[in-house]
This record gives sequence, C-alpha cells and structure tokens, in this order.
Amino acid sequence: MEITFIGTGSGVPSKKRNVSSLALSMLQQRDEVWLFDCGEATQHQILHSKIKPRKISKIFITHMHGDHIFGLPGLLSSRSFQEGTTPLEIYGPPRLKEFIELSLKVSETHLKYPIVFKSIDSNILFEDEHVIVKSLRLKHGVPSYGFIIEEKDSVGHLLPNKLKELGIKPGPIYQDIKNHEKITLPDGQTIYREDVTGPIIKGKKVSILGDTLPTEEIIESIYDSDLLIHEATFTDEDRALAKDYNHSTSIQAAELAKKANVKQLILNHVSSRYQDHDLEKELDKVNDVLPNTIYAKDLYTYTVQKEG
Amino acid sequence: MEITFIGTGSGVPSKKRNVSSLALSMLQQRDEVWLFDCGEATQHQILHSKIKPRKISKIFITHMHGDHIFGLPGLLSSRSFQEGTTPLEIYGPPRLKEFIELSLKVSETHLKYPIVFKSIDSNILFEDEHVIVKSLRLKHGVPSYGFIIEEKDSVGHLLPNKLKELGIKPGPIYQDIKNHEKITLPDGQTIYREDVTGPIIKGKKVSILGDTLPTEEIIESIYDSDLLIHEATFTDEDRALAKDYNHSTSIQAAELAKKANVKQLILNHVSSRYQDHDLEKELDKVNDVLPNTIYAKDLYTYTVQKEG
Ligand SMILES: [Zn+2]
Ligand SMILES: [Zn+2]
Repeated sequence: MEITFIGTGSGVPSKKRNVSSLALSMLQQRDEVWLFDCGEATQHQILHSKIKPRKISKIFITHMHGDHIFGLPGLLSSRSFQEGTTPLEIYGPPRLKEFIELSLKVSETHLKYPIVFKSIDSNILFEDEHVIVKSLRLKHGVPSYGFIIEEKDSVGHLLPNKLKELGIKPGPIYQDIKNHEKITLPDGQTIYREDVTGPIIKGKKVSILGDTLPTEEIIESIYDSDLLIHEATFTDEDRALAKDYNHSTSIQAAELAKKANVKQLILNHVSSRYQDHDLEKELDKVNDVLPNTIYAKDLYTYTVQKEG
Repeated sequence: MEITFIGTGSGVPSKKRNVSSLALSMLQQRDEVWLFDCGEATQHQILHSKIKPRKISKIFITHMHGDHIFGLPGLLSSRSFQEGTTPLEIYGPPRLKEFIELSLKVSETHLKYPIVFKSIDSNILFEDEHVIVKSLRLKHGVPSYGFIIEEKDSVGHLLPNKLKELGIKPGPIYQDIKNHEKITLPDGQTIYREDVTGPIIKGKKVSILGDTLPTEEIIESIYDSDLLIHEATFTDEDRALAKDYNHSTSIQAAELAKKANVKQLILNHVSSRYQDHDLEKELDKVNDVLPNTIYAKDLYTYTVQKEG
C-alpha cells in the first residue's frame, strides 16, 4: 500500500500546503486508488502526482468541513471527463449526498459513471477477501470519523526446495497449490499447502483519522497500527488554541500513538501559521515522545510494505 | 481598470490553465476588486497574484457550469477567514444562491460578512456615479450571460494656467472647483468649471462574456468596447466541435469583435487540447481578421487606461 499526501494543510490553502486529501494506492493488490477527503483543488494537486482519477474507486470523507469536501464536485466531474466509467463508492456523513447531488444538478453535470453513496453508520464499512475497512468516531464538534484499513493475512511464499523434494516442477501448478489448502495432483499425490509454504504473511494496518481532539477512546481500535495518520493542527505551545478549535497538537498525537503501540506516526493537517523551522523544532520534541515521527508534506508518498 | 486573468482554461483544469475566473481591479477608483466567475481553485491562483480576497466586493457569475462556480464555497470561506467583513454582492443565475447556501450550510461555514444575492433579471445590474454594469444574454445551452462595464465620462483636468489668469492659487479650492459645475468664491467671483478644465475624459467600456456560440445579436451591446473578452474554446479547424459544444472558435470571436468595432480583443476559455505552438499558429490567422488580438494566460494582467 502506498499513501500519497495530496493536501496536508488545515482550514485554508496556502502556497505550501493544500487543504485535506490523501490517496491510498493499492495498484498491485487491486488496481485501485482510494481517496480520503477531498478539499478544494485536490484534482489540481493530483495533476502533479502519479494518481489517475479514473482509478479512484472509493472516496472516504472524514467530516463535512469545507476544507475536506469542497473539491468533490470538480473531482467527480473530471473523473468523468477523463473516461472514468466504473462505479464510484463514496463513504461519508449523510449530508454529503445532498451536497454532491445538488452541486452536480445545478451545474448540469452528467457523469458517465454511477455513484454509490454509503453512510458511515456501522463499524465495518467494507470487507472482501483481502481487506477490511472500519470506521471510528472522533471528537471534533461536528461528526468526524477515522478509517482503519486492515489487510488480511495472506498465505506464505511457496518453498521451491520443498516442492522439488515432492517432485513438482515449476509451472501453473504452483499457483494452484498456493490457491488451495489441499490439492490432489494427476498422479494421485495430495499436497497440503502448509507443507510447501513459508510462514503466513501478516496484513498491515493503516489508521487514517479526520480532524479531532486527542481521545483515548480510540486507542483500542487503532492499537498496533503499522501506520497512524493523525492530525496535528497546532504545535504543543498552542495547546489552548487546539482545544478551542477541537484540534490536536503534535505532542498529543504522539502520546496517543505511543499508548496505542503504533509503529509509524505521520502528523497531518498542519496550520499554515507555522514556518518550516517551527516545525523542525517541534519535531525534535515530538521525537522525544515517539521516535521516527514525521510531518506529512504535500505530494510526499509513504509506502507500507508487507513483509516477506 | 486592471484585468487579471485568474483561470483561462475550459472545462477541466490543466497544469497551464485553471478553470474560469478573472478579476477587475478598480483600486484607484474605488478600492474594490470585482470577480467574474469562480472555478475551482480560484482562491489558490489568487495566492499567486496581488489580489486580496477581502477587497472583492462583487462577484459576477456568467453561468452555472462547474468550471465557473465550484471555487465559490472555498473562496467565500477564505474571504471570511482572511478578515473580510464588508458585504459581498453576488450576481448570478437563480440556482447559484441555492448552491452557495447549501455548501455553506452542510460545511457549517459561518461567514463574518453578509452576502447579498442579486439575480440577473434586468439589463442594468448596477449603477453609481462612476460606473454602470449591464448584462446581456448569450447562447450556450444553459442560460449564460455577458457583463458590460461602462465607466462614466469624467470632468477634464484642471488647467493651471487658466486658474492663474483668474487669480486662483493652488489649494483645496482646486478640488471644490472640480467637483462643481459652478462655484462662487469668497471674493464674489463666479467660476464655471468648463472654463478652467480640459476636455471631458471618456469612460472606458469593457465587455466580459461567458461561454457562448458566436452570436451577432450582441453586437449592438458590445459596440465600441475598449476591451472585449470573448471565449475561444476551439481553434477554427474545430468549428464543428465548437458548434456541438455550444462554444466559439478564435476566428468567430475575432469576426464578431471586428463587426462590433472593438479596440482590443482577448481570447479566453481555451481548451487544453491545444499546445502553445498550436495557439501561436492560430493567432497568426486571427490577426489577419483583427490585428492585435491575444490569447489570455493565467495570471496575466491587462490595463485599460483612461486617457488624459
Ligand atoms: Zn480540517
Ligand atoms: Zn466553461
């Protein structure tokens, strides 16, 4: 899985950081891109990335603030213009449907693909053989959500030496063996997959959160995430402001990530009031709490690699 | 008056041309900026210009297509965030109000200034002592409008020699004389303004059109414009496409401008299908019809100077 940060600012766009959006690319696994939030000019930022709008198959919206949704009407139109014809699923708060439908209607935009609206009313939003997506409720004045993407564990690699010992030569049969727990060969021999494959490959867990106050209630849900993307609108000096505006500080995010045993924390949704050197200094303090933490930057890509 | 082209593309944004918007700055005359159309990321483009969102006092929307309106919710929010507190007038088709109100409502955006919606239902949209703004109907499938901004003629410059002859010394009295057709001085002398000022300074006429097929019906209204901004989505080779999509070609725009005795034509709303060298070649042909014509470019500024 690859995360591309499209817009990492907060509230209003600045020259350095656009308003919120990020893309989760799963091109190898499923040839799809999932988008999380879609602030104004998300489609413009995408022009400077490798993402193709027609590959976007699902959009998840954390909450209804303008800096997270005002890019949707334009992106949906352009996806159509650029020959996107496959259905698009949009997961978001209930009023999102109203906003999108009215925007398309007044502008007489006729999309070449269907939109399937899904409201965030259950814990499990989506599940198939490879992945499960759950939502969790945050604290932000308006209903705000986080999304947890968990890859399912997968069968270990085939062990060529073991296969050789059993007299099986490389060929399409290899894939058949990998796809079945047990298979009987033409010569009558029965192969148990567990005998010829390495250890199970653990799926990765990525937690992408919307705007929120720090809240310990989510620790259980995000526990052991390989990657946590948490907002850090303010530096810790501005803790009072963060509280007033229902946001978190960098240190609060790091403390939470530490309690949740998160392997990598990336700080997102950064106020434009801070200069680069402010953030560099802040990061030193954050790393005392949780080493390796970084600030997201527009168009930066982070790869979550499955082991093995 | 200064025109800044903010977005000069058509339909969808490209790396070179954003979707539609342009600003008319009248900072000397009235310390105001008027915006014409507001496609997505207009506020982002403005970050790279000299325009201050809080100086925008009126927004005129030519028609409801997404590439002309999807930047409004974000721009309105940012104007508020950037301490815009003065009322904002928005002139547009009736459904515009619905789109803006719903966008602000679902996103829980609370502006620090009032919006005054004005629908384009009369020929004269606005008039004061300096300027008059008229609308005219175009041909574009959906209701599309053009806007004609006419400065009123103003009093000629004071002639210092004439004033000297009459024994009047420079001072605040000069402005009083300029402001009144006739004034009686403390010494009983009566001054007629026309005796001490140069020729009347003609106001300028600027015509800014939305998307349209070429239509001779507008010639009378735009006649003698000092500046005409006309769409040229297609080159003349693609005349059939232009007709299919309710747009104009460069040559069609130039022919119309010539018939309307326009002094300067600027071609706008250019499809991203054309490369720079295509447009250079096209411009040679256009200039055979109407010399001096140019293509608009994003962030290019054109000044319409009053004489004298
Ligand atoms: Zn936000
Ligand atoms: Zn257009």
